[in-house]
Amino acid sequence: VLYVLDLVGVAVFSISGALAAGRKQMDLFGVIVLALVTAVGGGTLRDLILDAGPVFWVEKPIYLVVGAGAALLTVAVRRRLRRMRGVLLIADALGMSLFAVLGAVKATEIGISPVIAVVLGCMSGVAGGAVRDVLSNEIPLIFRREIYATAALASAGGFVLASGLGLGPGAAIGLGFIVGLALRLTAIRMKLELPVFVVDDD
Amino acid sequence: VLYVLDLVGVAVFSISGALAAGRKQMDLFGVIVLALVTAVGGGTLRDLILDAGPVFWVEKPIYLVVGAGAALLTVAVRRRLRRMRGVLLIADALGMSLFAVLGAVKATEIGISPVIAVVLGCMSGVAGGAVRDVLSNEIPLIFRREIYATAALASAGGFVLASGLGLGPGAAIGLGFIVGLALRLTAIRMKLELPVFVVDDD
Amino acid sequence: VLYVLDLVGVAVFSISGALAAGRKQMDLFGVIVLALVTAVGGGTLRDLILDAGPVFWVEKPIYLVVGAGAALLTVAVRRRLRRMRGVLLIADALGMSLFAVLGAVKATEIGISPVIAVVLGCMSGVAGGAVRDVLSNEIPLIFRREIYATAALASAGGFVLASGLGLGPGAAIGLGFIVGLALRLTAIRMKLELPVFVVDDD
Repeated sequence: VLYVLDLVGVAVFSISGALAAGRKQMDLFGVIVLALVTAVGGGTLRDLILDAGPVFWVEKPIYLVVGAGAALLTVAVRRRLRRMRGVLLIADALGMSLFAVLGAVKATEIGISPVIAVVLGCMSGVAGGAVRDVLSNEIPLIFRREIYATAALASAGGFVLASGLGLGPGAAIGLGFIVGLALRLTAIRMKLELPVFVVDDD
Repeated sequence: VLYVLDLVGVAVFSISGALAAGRKQMDLFGVIVLALVTAVGGGTLRDLILDAGPVFWVEKPIYLVVGAGAALLTVAVRRRLRRMRGVLLIADALGMSLFAVLGAVKATEIGISPVIAVVLGCMSGVAGGAVRDVLSNEIPLIFRREIYATAALASAGGFVLASGLGLGPGAAIGLGFIVGLALRLTAIRMKLELPVFVVDDD
Repeated sequence: VLYVLDLVGVAVFSISGALAAGRKQMDLFGVIVLALVTAVGGGTLRDLILDAGPVFWVEKPIYLVVGAGAALLTVAVRRRLRRMRGVLLIADALGMSLFAVLGAVKATEIGISPVIAVVLGCMSGVAGGAVRDVLSNEIPLIFRREIYATAALASAGGFVLASGLGLGPGAAIGLGFIVGLALRLTAIRMKLELPVFVVDDD
């Protein structure tokens, strides 16, 4: 089940990357690269930092295949996607929560301390989108108001906390996933935002 | 021969990085850094992802020395470079095809699957230029219309395919190199472009 | 002593990241991420390239804790910081010199050649600030005129040279630190700049 959800997350993130590429009028290659970077960027950064062998997609090309397929599909059916904005937003929330939890799981499995497992989990959920924005020459969306990264933090933190309190892996994963997802969906529905820090040099 | 070509590729990519730095009026340090990032960025990313020891230039400082030398030379003779635009474009095509093939070779040597070897080869050929553009605060050129990354893909894919069909390493390298180079030079000459994906949110 | 100075360096760099986030009106999460990236980005890149185990902060979460604390403090006392600009500039020079020397020390300890130890030391001192600027959608400051990266180069180079000439580690570290710091402070005071390279395509 986790594996299927993981691939769904890759597909959804890939669609968001492909749409960002379309907004900048990139060519087909750019669309695929931006889609893949968005989909696997967070996990790639996590694996580079953990330094525990080649990054995950090197041994499982299926991730790139699914991501590239989703990008091409996006180009093919773009008109229909416009009407699916709500569905995409929910799917994105699913992908983000799942990536954050699974990132924390992977870090914990190789004996990383809880604080860092939370940081790396959150990174797995949001860094792909940040790299997408940098490559599109934009300030990363996750640094601006919306409660997005905070939800990733809640997912990773929920899992680590639940594990620490003695829950089994399945229950802890489920709990982290639900907490982050619920926070993100609530934030979308209620337009919740984090306070902004303003420095103006005069 | 490969080794010499590899250093020529580094020098050419370094020149393109130095010129990009000059367009943004960077200082001498910026010129050298942007030149080196362009020259060794693709291979560095490949090595980080493969996680097979320190990146290549850590053990062979000659790459950085050649790159920095080419950057300083660019500053010294910039007027003359203007008349050499055609030569530089061809040299850049040579470097890109070579880096892509050699990237795929390196990935194959450590037992990476064919699909990923093609991806990493393509990355070796084009990622340096992408990082150059991000550091110059531009959307990477390789994401826009021109057939550039596609040629890198052809080089890496040509090598992997030829190897798979039983050609010896020398012949497979030569074939991949020629295929990508020919595609890139044809694209330059005939102004071939990939189709663009446009999303406009209204 | 080095350890304490190292944490001071993290705190100072973190403040500069938090202020940059405030200038782009990021939210609290963005402030903390940009602060941490600035503070540990250089050392992270160094460790990724050296490929000698997980990056330093994975095993020492204290770095992230100090960095996040400094970021939150920056938000809390921002008005007071305005009057401390001079102090911050000096503290930043301290952090940069120290990170550059310690980066070279770490590279030397695992048997890296002198040229590359200088490159990696310089990178440890300045790359965090470069990533901060890329994430803020700006061309990295270190590529523009001011003598900053050159001072990092002097710190790392001073240490490597002094070690090569037979000085003990303590003396070599002190010398590299002083040389880079003195160059940076002189540059600030005398407004020293590197020459700029200008390419205009007409």
